[in-house]
Amino acid sequence: MNTTDILEAYPHEVETDVALIADAIDALQRCALACTACADACLAEDMIGDLRLCIRTDLDCADSCEALTRILTRRLGYPGAVIRAHLQACIIACSTCGDECAQHAEMHEHCRLCAEACRACEAACRALLSAAESSEKAMPA
Amino acid sequence: MNTTDILEAYPHEVETDVALIADAIDALQRCALACTACADACLAEDMIGDLRLCIRTDLDCADSCEALTRILTRRLGYPGAVIRAHLQACIIACSTCGDECAQHAEMHEHCRLCAEACRACEAACRALLSAAESSEKAMPA
Amino acid sequence: MNTTDILEAYPHEVETDVALIADAIDALQRCALACTACADACLAEDMIGDLRLCIRTDLDCADSCEALTRILTRRLGYPGAVIRAHLQACIIACSTCGDECAQHAEMHEHCRLCAEACRACEAACRALLSAAESSEKAMPA
Amino acid sequence: MNTTDILEAYPHEVETDVALIADAIDALQRCALACTACADACLAEDMIGDLRLCIRTDLDCADSCEALTRILTRRLGYPGAVIRAHLQACIIACSTCGDECAQHAEMHEHCRLCAEACRACEAACRALLSAAESSEKAMPA
Repeated sequence: MNTTDILEAYPHEVETDVALIADAIDALQRCALACTACADACLAEDMIGDLRLCIRTDLDCADSCEALTRILTRRLGYPGAVIRAHLQACIIACSTCGDECAQHAEMHEHCRLCAEACRACEAACRALLSAAESSEKAMPA
Repeated sequence: MNTTDILEAYPHEVETDVALIADAIDALQRCALACTACADACLAEDMIGDLRLCIRTDLDCADSCEALTRILTRRLGYPGAVIRAHLQACIIACSTCGDECAQHAEMHEHCRLCAEACRACEAACRALLSAAESSEKAMPA
Repeated sequence: MNTTDILEAYPHEVETDVALIADAIDALQRCALACTACADACLAEDMIGDLRLCIRTDLDCADSCEALTRILTRRLGYPGAVIRAHLQACIIACSTCGDECAQHAEMHEHCRLCAEACRACEAACRALLSAAESSEKAMPA
Repeated sequence: MNTTDILEAYPHEVETDVALIADAIDALQRCALACTACADACLAEDMIGDLRLCIRTDLDCADSCEALTRILTRRLGYPGAVIRAHLQACIIACSTCGDECAQHAEMHEHCRLCAEACRACEAACRALLSAAESSEKAMPA
């Protein structure tokens, strides 16, 4: 089952772009996983004292990604303002965590992978937000 | 154990206002619970066909509140931009769900209680956001 | 709004004991909060190297408590086997985390409060599980 | 990034079978997504009155899968009893939801896909539980 398959099984036509939503959902699930794993791996490092903030930003980012995954997966009613605000919040969580992990990427493979997952997730959320904002503007008042 | 007790057990001094954070966390946990219960009660109503959107906004709001509860509970490093963006997103989720539930409040006690919990949560998040924005402005660049 | 209020707003009669469920939900939300806060406070301690396992058990316990909070809050259909299995799992998570935090309770107030919250949550879940198992046995095959 | 990549970035040797854990995590994330989407799609069906229990079991199953995803992703300290109990609980959630969705599979594509995801997740969790129980027995007392 691809993400697109289950989204397209929704029983009504929806205006939103399924491919963009599916990309975002896939990136969000990857990012949540990477952040949870990175926090745990940081916790196991000898130099854990230098990774405290990295663990915190990992945990925040995982929480944000999981909430947004669920919100984006729902198609009924399209609450545009709710979706845009959570996309914006998650973009900031991913950007913050990506920046923090990138600082440790050369030393720790889990930080490198996590930074990568955060960047990819941020990009997928930005693409979806941009489409959502365009269609918002195109709507008659 | 009060919410304040566990927040104050954090081992360092933190600039943020513990009472405001504790109020927000308590309101968020109440709201998440009310939304989860209201979605389930709506699902059991005879007139479920009229409550579809109410269930969806309940589920979104519960997800947003739970993610923010965790983010606000953490005190290490204070990621201001992450916190403000998630407060803003949760305020919109609570406001959307409160408006939707308020429309059914006279007919369904669970919608009345849920609308109340959403309003209280929105207010607590706004109070905290306002304090966070003030202290942000007061900081030297 | 008390937890009992929102549970009792469910539109049908349910056989289960609302007071026991409400006690468990309250204890679960307290415990999830204590575990999230304790993990963050441990992360901020100088002796973080000795608290790695405590952080891990805190995070697991918070996840388990939050999933069970949602499952117990729903009243439609009463999936007895699902509820009992998740009560059993959460009892083990709380017991494991309570034992771990109890070892650091004299040194760290957050571990003392968290151990207390885990014990209270374990007890509330055991009371509910015991009632659920009794009523299961009383049912005709 | 594959699930295996991020799990293998953990800085120490761990006895557990990474491939089995990665399979379970992938199946859990798929299942949580399918359940969230199926609940939303059921909510949008004309015959929603017949799908109430399906929505409830979907929501429970998504909650259980997400909690277990996080617990399995952590590798520090291997809390065997916690992991086995949550695998057992999730197996019951997946089996219950799979059975319920299977009843509507011919009529609703989202139920068919969701039942499939639940079966796959149940199988992956059983394989991991079986390996965990074997290694438990093999350990010296």
